Amino acid sequence: MLDKFQKHIHTTFPFLLERKFYIAVSGGLDSMVLVHLFQQMKCSFGMLHCNFQLRATESDEDMKFVLAYAAQHQIPCEVQQFNTKIYAEKNKLSIQLAARELRYQWFEAQRQANHYDYILTAHHLDDTLETFLINFSRGTGLEGLTGIPQQNETIVRPLLPFSREAIWHYAQDNQLQWREDSSNASDNYLRNKIRHHLVPILKELNTSFLDSFQNTIHHLKEAQEILQDGVALRYQEIVLKQEDGTLRFDLKKLLELDHYTSYLYQWLHSYGFTAWQDIFDLVHAQSGKQVHSDAFILLKNRASLLLFSKESQHDKRHYFIEKGIEYVKEPINLTLCNVSYPSYTLAKCIFVDQDKIKYPLVIRKWEEGDVFYPKGMKGKKKLSKYFKDEKFSLYEKSTQWLLCSENQIVWVIGKRQDERFIITENTKQILQIIQQ
Amino acid sequence: MLDKFQKHIHTTFPFLLERKFYIAVSGGLDSMVLVHLFQQMKCSFGMLHCNFQLRATESDEDMKFVLAYAAQHQIPCEVQQFNTKIYAEKNKLSIQLAARELRYQWFEAQRQANHYDYILTAHHLDDTLETFLINFSRGTGLEGLTGIPQQNETIVRPLLPFSREAIWHYAQDNQLQWREDSSNASDNYLRNKIRHHLVPILKELNTSFLDSFQNTIHHLKEAQEILQDGVALRYQEIVLKQEDGTLRFDLKKLLELDHYTSYLYQWLHSYGFTAWQDIFDLVHAQSGKQVHSDAFILLKNRASLLLFSKESQHDKRHYFIEKGIEYVKEPINLTLCNVSYPSYTLAKCIFVDQDKIKYPLVIRKWEEGDVFYPKGMKGKKKLSKYFKDEKFSLYEKSTQWLLCSENQIVWVIGKRQDERFIITENTKQILQIIQQ
Repeated sequence: MLDKFQKHIHTTFPFLLERKFYIAVSGGLDSMVLVHLFQQMKCSFGMLHCNFQLRATESDEDMKFVLAYAAQHQIPCEVQQFNTKIYAEKNKLSIQLAARELRYQWFEAQRQANHYDYILTAHHLDDTLETFLINFSRGTGLEGLTGIPQQNETIVRPLLPFSREAIWHYAQDNQLQWREDSSNASDNYLRNKIRHHLVPILKELNTSFLDSFQNTIHHLKEAQEILQDGVALRYQEIVLKQEDGTLRFDLKKLLELDHYTSYLYQWLHSYGFTAWQDIFDLVHAQSGKQVHSDAFILLKNRASLLLFSKESQHDKRHYFIEKGIEYVKEPINLTLCNVSYPSYTLAKCIFVDQDKIKYPLVIRKWEEGDVFYPKGMKGKKKLSKYFKDEKFSLYEKSTQWLLCSENQIVWVIGKRQDERFIITENTKQILQIIQQ
Repeated sequence: MLDKFQKHIHTTFPFLLERKFYIAVSGGLDSMVLVHLFQQMKCSFGMLHCNFQLRATESDEDMKFVLAYAAQHQIPCEVQQFNTKIYAEKNKLSIQLAARELRYQWFEAQRQANHYDYILTAHHLDDTLETFLINFSRGTGLEGLTGIPQQNETIVRPLLPFSREAIWHYAQDNQLQWREDSSNASDNYLRNKIRHHLVPILKELNTSFLDSFQNTIHHLKEAQEILQDGVALRYQEIVLKQEDGTLRFDLKKLLELDHYTSYLYQWLHSYGFTAWQDIFDLVHAQSGKQVHSDAFILLKNRASLLLFSKESQHDKRHYFIEKGIEYVKEPINLTLCNVSYPSYTLAKCIFVDQDKIKYPLVIRKWEEGDVFYPKGMKGKKKLSKYFKDEKFSLYEKSTQWLLCSENQIVWVIGKRQDERFIITENTKQILQIIQQ
């Protein structure tokens, strides 16, 4: 007869029975139950054990215990030692986060190298509750309250609906052995405080608290799913990805939403923004105002908000056009052709004296100190002054391409030609350059 | 200089300064601070005090304290005594819920009778936290975690962003007096357990826990708003309200959604359904299957789910048609006219011998024991048998109208005429009845 654990696996993860997977095994209660469970179900799997070397000889004893179990039961087993403290220092992470990163990186590497399909971990309902309460105690959003996922991509957590107590009973019933992790009682102050002080009160207030909590998590996950659905739906209506990667938010449509600030939060929080009031003010601010995150800029530009990375602002690349090239596709579309006479019918087109320019021509962004000789004006002008006079926004400046001959500007592309390269009555060969 | 309390009111509730409102005053710390605050702001307001008679002489002392304060400061004050225990027993409510109902009913009655605009209550951030934790301890959904609203219709809660501690400091700074509610220490077991045992641990784990909590609540409220928005959007696409009030859920469109079960939950939970798995199964069930809540029925009917109240199933009303009436609008559209000869061009139309029927004609739903003589058949048939043979669903039976002469069925409207009333070669006057 199948017990409730086996039933759950048959119902929720039937694919596991026919696939190759690793079980992540610390040697503690939860992972030893998980191993035993899949042994009972006659699955073929391997074990992965991490030695984080955080608890001196204890860590080594854990490793020996796991290796001995694997040998006795003829289960393939890989172990890996990590210098967790050094990794944490180097990457400015807490010990917990460092161990987590190292663990999952190694699991995934092992999985891929040995062509396994899944990694199984022994997370359970009490873990979900503790994670909920940790996030809640620190302040969080809906996502932080929806708990640990049953499955994300290749990570599967078959024990997630079961309580620590149920898992302990399984271990008792099957006379399993496991290693107690002494860090449960000391290492992780916050989690242990929650486990030993907060959770017992909740269980006392409601004798079926864990069942209620499971329902809560279920409702919150559903809410999160609908929310994501709605956020994606509105995104399609309001946000347009431009060719250069910039996201353009249509403010007219945005302001028609009842809760536009909530949508902005949902769309922008993964870009590292934190100054939400500034962002909400930006909607009604003057064109040109902007809010920065570490890596991104959000700019008010007329009836839009534009979102682009700071990196895209500093595109230092030069694109070269050799003599004879007729079509340029990167970074913008240009057509170059020799013509017998100028015909001014195209909006974004210039005529250049072939003898005045030097190949390769260069397409690049503006640089500090650029000057040019605007066509029809006497003398030179700083490009920055030209941008200012023409009321270029920061964004427009950053996306403006220049066509240059050596380091001289031939064309502020699509905007203004340079006087030095124009055709005259002495011009022998006319080059027409068209922006498309 | 405005303090932070006054600033909050100026920013968030400027309309209060020009309106008439009552403050709900228990005599405790929070409500006395609220009263003092609006006195400082030179607002004109009244006080409402409920005496729930739950704590013997203490309740009376509270009332005297509030009345004395009102008299001393010349503030209009109404008090009301309630027999809370009897109300709770009669309505099968907990004492807390009974007091709550009585309170808000009386507040609203006072407000309307005296043409006041708002009722102010002194709920604060710690109340929101306790409500969050009460709901969480029992199991809840997103809504149960979004806290107490700052304003719903005529109820305004100006102290909601402030902690109990901040309010206590205000009372100290202004040397206010208030009554300690002894029930804080005994009456409400769950709330007090949470206040005195759970909350202190959370505050210990994070010294700025209340600020974090306020952010959490803010994020959850935003999530809830977007969720409602998305739910409403999909509702418009998928749900159609029929003329008779039945809601029709289009299953084809529903099944195109990634998380249709979550949407069903959102749309249906206010109708009192609890058997969610049964509802989700209904989507793929045979036509005719149904799930009941206390007051509603959800029925699978071909490519739809139909939602209607049980009451609408038992519509016992009779609608009468007097002689000479040419148009009937309720409960369905019928046209009656005398014609010289029958012309069978309309789909839903019968011809009746005027001399065979008796006025007033009756339109009604089917009743137990109904029989009729289906036109073209010999003899009579139980209506229930006819419904069964014609494969009427429960829903179709419940929405089927009958046209009767006295208690004899003349027409199963739109479906089958009765043989007894048909025209023959002896008919003198033909009545044509058309369903539109």
